[in-house]
Amino acid sequence: MAKAGDIVKIKTIKEELKGTLLPSLDPSLLLLKLESGYNIGISKKEVQQLRVEGKAKLEAFPSLKAKQKNLPGISLIVTGGTISSRLDYKTGAVKWLSKPEELLAVAPGMLNIVNVKKIEVPFLIGSENMVPKNWIKIAKIAAKLLNKKENKGIIITHGTDTLHYTAAALSFMLKNLNKTVILTYSQRSLDRGSSDALLNLTCSAHASLSDIAEVMLVGHATSQDNYCFAMRGTKVRKMHTSRRDTFRPINELPIAKIDEQGKINIINKEFKRRDEKKRVQVDATFSDKIALLKYYPGADPDILNYYINKRYKGIIVEMLGLGHLATSESEMNWLPLIKKAINKGIIICAAPQTIYGRLDPYVYSTGREIQASGVIYLEDMLPEVAYVKLGWLLGHRYSKEKIKELMLKNIAGELNKKISEKAFLY
Amino acid sequence: MAKAGDIVKIKTIKEELKGTLLPSLDPSLLLLKLESGYNIGISKKEVQQLRVEGKAKLEAFPSLKAKQKNLPGISLIVTGGTISSRLDYKTGAVKWLSKPEELLAVAPGMLNIVNVKKIEVPFLIGSENMVPKNWIKIAKIAAKLLNKKENKGIIITHGTDTLHYTAAALSFMLKNLNKTVILTYSQRSLDRGSSDALLNLTCSAHASLSDIAEVMLVGHATSQDNYCFAMRGTKVRKMHTSRRDTFRPINELPIAKIDEQGKINIINKEFKRRDEKKRVQVDATFSDKIALLKYYPGADPDILNYYINKRYKGIIVEMLGLGHLATSESEMNWLPLIKKAINKGIIICAAPQTIYGRLDPYVYSTGREIQASGVIYLEDMLPEVAYVKLGWLLGHRYSKEKIKELMLKNIAGELNKKISEKAFLY
Repeated sequence: MAKAGDIVKIKTIKEELKGTLLPSLDPSLLLLKLESGYNIGISKKEVQQLRVEGKAKLEAFPSLKAKQKNLPGISLIVTGGTISSRLDYKTGAVKWLSKPEELLAVAPGMLNIVNVKKIEVPFLIGSENMVPKNWIKIAKIAAKLLNKKENKGIIITHGTDTLHYTAAALSFMLKNLNKTVILTYSQRSLDRGSSDALLNLTCSAHASLSDIAEVMLVGHATSQDNYCFAMRGTKVRKMHTSRRDTFRPINELPIAKIDEQGKINIINKEFKRRDEKKRVQVDATFSDKIALLKYYPGADPDILNYYINKRYKGIIVEMLGLGHLATSESEMNWLPLIKKAINKGIIICAAPQTIYGRLDPYVYSTGREIQASGVIYLEDMLPEVAYVKLGWLLGHRYSKEKIKELMLKNIAGELNKKISEKAFLY
Repeated sequence: MAKAGDIVKIKTIKEELKGTLLPSLDPSLLLLKLESGYNIGISKKEVQQLRVEGKAKLEAFPSLKAKQKNLPGISLIVTGGTISSRLDYKTGAVKWLSKPEELLAVAPGMLNIVNVKKIEVPFLIGSENMVPKNWIKIAKIAAKLLNKKENKGIIITHGTDTLHYTAAALSFMLKNLNKTVILTYSQRSLDRGSSDALLNLTCSAHASLSDIAEVMLVGHATSQDNYCFAMRGTKVRKMHTSRRDTFRPINELPIAKIDEQGKINIINKEFKRRDEKKRVQVDATFSDKIALLKYYPGADPDILNYYINKRYKGIIVEMLGLGHLATSESEMNWLPLIKKAINKGIIICAAPQTIYGRLDPYVYSTGREIQASGVIYLEDMLPEVAYVKLGWLLGHRYSKEKIKELMLKNIAGELNKKISEKAFLY
């Protein structure tokens, strides 16, 4: 009987396959790691012939020492998430990789594209457990690596749940960006036949060498394993609980389309270019008294008293439509408490609950009333990005007027003057 | 000089047009109501010839008395919103229609499709100002009209901001639905050249006579004026601040595609059929101590103390990814306060912040921890719909166990067992 770790040749009804047998949780299935790096599941029923050809050294992950010296250098920051985990076949629990190098074993092709100089592991957690402190830690390491001559760019692997929040945070915290910063992920753990890590890591390696000096999220563009999008860190959102192409660009087109072979098609020409003479500055700070508050019909404005009493400094309100909530025409008028909060010094901003589109307070009297009370309308900025930006700004010793001004100033592509018609549901 | 109200023939560089001149806010533009009902703007520069042919009776809207007796009957409920408003050309402010019949003037073609038996106007407000009490009022009127033999269906015109919340509310509140309930809207006011009301009202008239006995939102399927979608009231969301095709089906395909000529293509065959022998029952109630709470990284779980102290009965938490938030692995563990709230009798449910996709607490230990603490995972239910459903259920004298059971029972299409691959970003 063939065992996990055996190199096998399998003949099925449909095809002939060669690879290394992985431990399979499903007794009716053989799990095979192909030489391409992909894992596939094969129904035992379909196997006509199986021949053991040798024994793989499953623990012998590509060593960093074996890296190809002539290739351009990059560094990795490994933070946790599904892309850093695999199933413990004995207990059924998801475990963290024991060595970050295991990540490279999933996408050995990466080592033909880049020379991985360093792998930093500040922490290993699921991204749902991250807090703004984690963003600050990543930003500091990223800046250190970006200012090293040996790195053309960096790749950060991260869980999917809050990846878009981290992408926004790094977009603001890495000032004077000189090189490429890629965030990537997988929705299926590395040991699963259907893992999306291989394509995401390969495309990320190509993207990290590109001319684009932006913080970008790189991942599946479609539910197929065919190509990836590179999306601006401030214009991207997790839009599906489980699909591999869950991250979608919002209110702008992706910056580029990238395939496994390294072909990079620029879709959106508005980006900052690589300039290795520059040095990144870390501007990593965050205030902890910021809220993201979603409005809904029937919502009691008294919730604002909670934030006033707890001495919050800023609130992003996810408003309806063009930037509305119940005002003087309604039984549940929010304006008196909004005015009270603003008088108490809280900065209140409006962001779109619809996700897509741009706010406009001037179309209806409701919007004009809300704006007149002192609410700042954040144009087409995503609510999640608005939260990150306001927390970041309030971490500085800026005056309130300065913060209001900066909320409406485009700092990292978070505000887009003209939205392409095609960008809706892209 | 031609004045507003004149019937004119205009020759431009491109074409010859006939219609009634409307007051135009823009001095460089002529605004013309064509005989088709569409309004168009014409640059004065392009006008080569203009001939006044008569005087329109602008106030002479099609009278309900002139309705065609042989056509199937429907009734309208007019609630406000852009579709019930027009610009006051003297003050520049948006005004409500003075008579609901003015609505029919926008889409005179409607009167060739249906015989409008009655127009009820419970209130005229922007939908951003609605509260659950308004849903109850609409539900009661709707049921009364649906139980009249003379009506094959009803059309409710409504503002866009909270139209999807109202659609969900009516889906639950109209029990034993016998006929078709259509909600429709416009994103541009009736007097604007680009108003989307004509197509939406025409398609709604056709849809109201269909075999589909569901609460459906009917509106532009694309940004062109070519056809509409009829989308289930519990599976639809406003996804853009301003586009006319802002309403999109979420986690299922639209029930049907409808064109101006009345061609109805069924896309999703899972719907309840017309059964005029049934009588609708109104089950219109709502508890006011329900919250919709969006989680974000760094969110302080202490907010749950506010809801506990205010004696809330239910909270829908918009969680990350498959249904996650920070737990025991994080510096900001939400579990102790979630457990406290549940111990105090608050029903806590999880809904997807990603909007698209289905929750699954079993994939990661975070989800298992949260579920074990007593949180109910609402599958693929939209957060907005979950809020409406929980508020509606808590308005009843059900036991807590019964409510938990009903939250996971499909009542009005809010839970979808199998999501079509095509339904993502449809």
